[in-house]
Amino acid sequence: MPAAPVPTRAEIFVADTDTVERPQEDAALVPTVRDEEGNLSPEFVETVDAAIEADDTDRLKALTEDLHEADLADLIEALHPTDQSKLVRLLGRDFDFVALTELDDAMRVRILDELPPEAVAEGMRELNSDDAAHILEDLDEPDKDAILERMSFVERLQLQRVLDYPEESAGRRMQTDFIAVPPFWTVGQTIDYLREAEELPEEFYQIFVVDPGFRLQGTLPLDALLRSKRPQKISEIMRGSPYLVAATDDQEEVAHLFERYNLVSAAVTDDSERLVGVIHVDDIVDVIQEEVEEDIKRMAGIGDEEVSDSILATVRSRFTWLLVNLATAVLASLVIGLFDATIQQMVALAVLMPIVASMGGNAGTQTMTVAVRALATRDIDIFNARRIISRETIVGFLNGMLFAVVIGVIASVWFGSIGLGGVIAAAMVVNMVAAGLFGILIPLTLNKIGVDPAIASGVFVTTVTDVVGFFAFLSFAAWWFGLA
Amino acid sequence: MPAAPVPTRAEIFVADTDTVERPQEDAALVPTVRDEEGNLSPEFVETVDAAIEADDTDRLKALTEDLHEADLADLIEALHPTDQSKLVRLLGRDFDFVALTELDDAMRVRILDELPPEAVAEGMRELNSDDAAHILEDLDEPDKDAILERMSFVERLQLQRVLDYPEESAGRRMQTDFIAVPPFWTVGQTIDYLREAEELPEEFYQIFVVDPGFRLQGTLPLDALLRSKRPQKISEIMRGSPYLVAATDDQEEVAHLFERYNLVSAAVTDDSERLVGVIHVDDIVDVIQEEVEEDIKRMAGIGDEEVSDSILATVRSRFTWLLVNLATAVLASLVIGLFDATIQQMVALAVLMPIVASMGGNAGTQTMTVAVRALATRDIDIFNARRIISRETIVGFLNGMLFAVVIGVIASVWFGSIGLGGVIAAAMVVNMVAAGLFGILIPLTLNKIGVDPAIASGVFVTTVTDVVGFFAFLSFAAWWFGLA
Repeated sequence: MPAAPVPTRAEIFVADTDTVERPQEDAALVPTVRDEEGNLSPEFVETVDAAIEADDTDRLKALTEDLHEADLADLIEALHPTDQSKLVRLLGRDFDFVALTELDDAMRVRILDELPPEAVAEGMRELNSDDAAHILEDLDEPDKDAILERMSFVERLQLQRVLDYPEESAGRRMQTDFIAVPPFWTVGQTIDYLREAEELPEEFYQIFVVDPGFRLQGTLPLDALLRSKRPQKISEIMRGSPYLVAATDDQEEVAHLFERYNLVSAAVTDDSERLVGVIHVDDIVDVIQEEVEEDIKRMAGIGDEEVSDSILATVRSRFTWLLVNLATAVLASLVIGLFDATIQQMVALAVLMPIVASMGGNAGTQTMTVAVRALATRDIDIFNARRIISRETIVGFLNGMLFAVVIGVIASVWFGSIGLGGVIAAAMVVNMVAAGLFGILIPLTLNKIGVDPAIASGVFVTTVTDVVGFFAFLSFAAWWFGLA
Repeated sequence: MPAAPVPTRAEIFVADTDTVERPQEDAALVPTVRDEEGNLSPEFVETVDAAIEADDTDRLKALTEDLHEADLADLIEALHPTDQSKLVRLLGRDFDFVALTELDDAMRVRILDELPPEAVAEGMRELNSDDAAHILEDLDEPDKDAILERMSFVERLQLQRVLDYPEESAGRRMQTDFIAVPPFWTVGQTIDYLREAEELPEEFYQIFVVDPGFRLQGTLPLDALLRSKRPQKISEIMRGSPYLVAATDDQEEVAHLFERYNLVSAAVTDDSERLVGVIHVDDIVDVIQEEVEEDIKRMAGIGDEEVSDSILATVRSRFTWLLVNLATAVLASLVIGLFDATIQQMVALAVLMPIVASMGGNAGTQTMTVAVRALATRDIDIFNARRIISRETIVGFLNGMLFAVVIGVIASVWFGSIGLGGVIAAAMVVNMVAAGLFGILIPLTLNKIGVDPAIASGVFVTTVTDVVGFFAFLSFAAWWFGLA
């Protein structure tokens, strides 16, 4: 009877039990945890709540022992803040710290602050280096050191090495345990090694072939190993690994690599090209999510805000963007101020002017969003940039013409003045063209000078469309009706 | 000497050559294709361009034979539209149709239209069912049928079955070739089977255990197979598979499953719970990208627009949203119209009024974006909704107070009227609270009634903030200064 196989993370909650008869039961447990929509079921949360209130440790352990780390994390998020760290304390050694890596940063830090450093150090013992680093990185130095001090020398050293890599680098995302064999081994030797080995990584999709200096010689996907005969030399069936990741590479670059070439895992090497770790696709899936979320939030001016942030943190994170917006709004008002005499003589202008600005703002945002996304997904480059710029301008002009007619008619009828209709129509065309042109040029320029277009484009674009919109409309009117 | 191992997709361009000595060369080929930033190098594109102009088929084949499908796709995107289908024609049988699946829909359809159906049918022969379906699904019926007619009966049948599943369903994303063994086999039998088998899937990370009726009995990760002794029975080491995907499941649901449990591949079953296919994480990575892109674009009102869309397609896709925005802008103007007499008596109001509306619009968009994303990532649920609603309202109030002071001072000084400063300050608070409250309530409500909050929230929120902003400011002013 061989040792029970180490589970892949995909199936860890089944294998937590280290037996093969359990799965069916465990599978049966899932529906009670989540409803059809895949949301956590209120019944389950209430049961856990009750167990926590009653300090019923045994019940709590029974309820959570078979939970996947992700379900445990969702459970914690569903609990009342005060119960969250209590749950961790009650479960003690039975709490799976991996769950903490699935929480919002703010929530994770709050929970960790309420736990004794010993407990944290103890709980991090079984974690992969990347998960451990993820848990420590957001803590302030004193807390971090307090925990590190309580870890064994070796663990601390390993962790330190990962933490030494810059945040958002491949080194932070990689796992430091992997399987490496010498090229002169045979398929048989390798398979036997895997059968006998005590400690194997939780998950692995390829085996790395290294020289005595741990420099990567090649890679060996598991299926290739399974398809080859035992006497076969590893060196004869290993593949070159064209997709080398440096530990210092930015995680977004690595994500692009995984997406483009559909990788499942990739070797990570240090400056001296020694193999130091492996990055798995499931970590990359998280990176992809993070990076896009970051872009969306930056476009809306909410920084890296999270649902669990405190009120004050939220106020602060939004204040800056609103302040910038106030400045641009005041600028637009100054433009209007230039024409106060004109408006005095024809109040209809005050009534109509927001329309031109608002349409320009929306058209500009449309173009800008296309541009920002295309830059992020590398869909826009020197090969098609010129084509896209002219396309956006033409689109702006065409939509401008269409809406010029619509609003022209509306205004003429509303105020019984064809002249007014013509004025707003002309202003509409001008502002829509400006929206298309600047909507694409601003992000491209920001990107060129190394500013994240997602974070800054919006302000500039709407400022342009406001100013151009108000100025065009009011000046055309002043000129056409010969007003002051 | 065993057959060269079938490559994983991650390394397909290395393995294209079916030898093990080539990798180094091929790896060396990559840098000439892409620069350090990972962008396609202009030199490479020009070389290809030249070869196409010169109808130099041999040169073209030499340049592209070792390209990964993703690189080939990027190359196509970098070419002049007329050269794109010419490249495919020139390469003939040597063109890897998988590359087409990596292109924008519009571009793919255009290229396919210019190719003879025979060529397409021929080129799709080697494709996985999901890729083949992906290529056909956007074509109009006649073209689709013309191609299907030219495929072998079996191929057509297989493909039809995939195409019968709804778009964006797991059935469309799954691959129909997978490895399934009976539970009574031993590890040895299975490994021998893998060694002898002629046709194995391009990539596989687990083996499925099925009964004679092809109902799924369990799954077997490759590493588990490698860790077990040859005499071991499969039934003794197989895992339960708690993450069953139904072929009719929505791809977004499947993506959530993969993300939450860090899956690498999952079995897909039909209504009678028979195993019909397998979904791999690399396909899910694409789904995640698509779904988020969709949300971003919907928030900006640009539908499922792509960079390669034609001018007219773009104008059309943006017109609707702009029309909706025009309606809301006119609505806001009507509100202003109610106060034309007031504005006549105090033009300063016309100058200041856009500020209140603009600030509300931005604050509302901030809140709305948080809500829409939280709904998409399942970070907001019945457990924290109430907390978030009150938080957003309070945040709106606090930022409202802060900016009330700022703008109040500015307005008082600018127009030398403390009264006017007080009026705009009061309006600011009211509108910012409204922005927070409706910014969260509107997406939550839309989500509840089954409307995608990403697509519709924006309009409603900005309409509210415009109307409330103008009305509050102008009515407060009329009342305070006792104007008509």
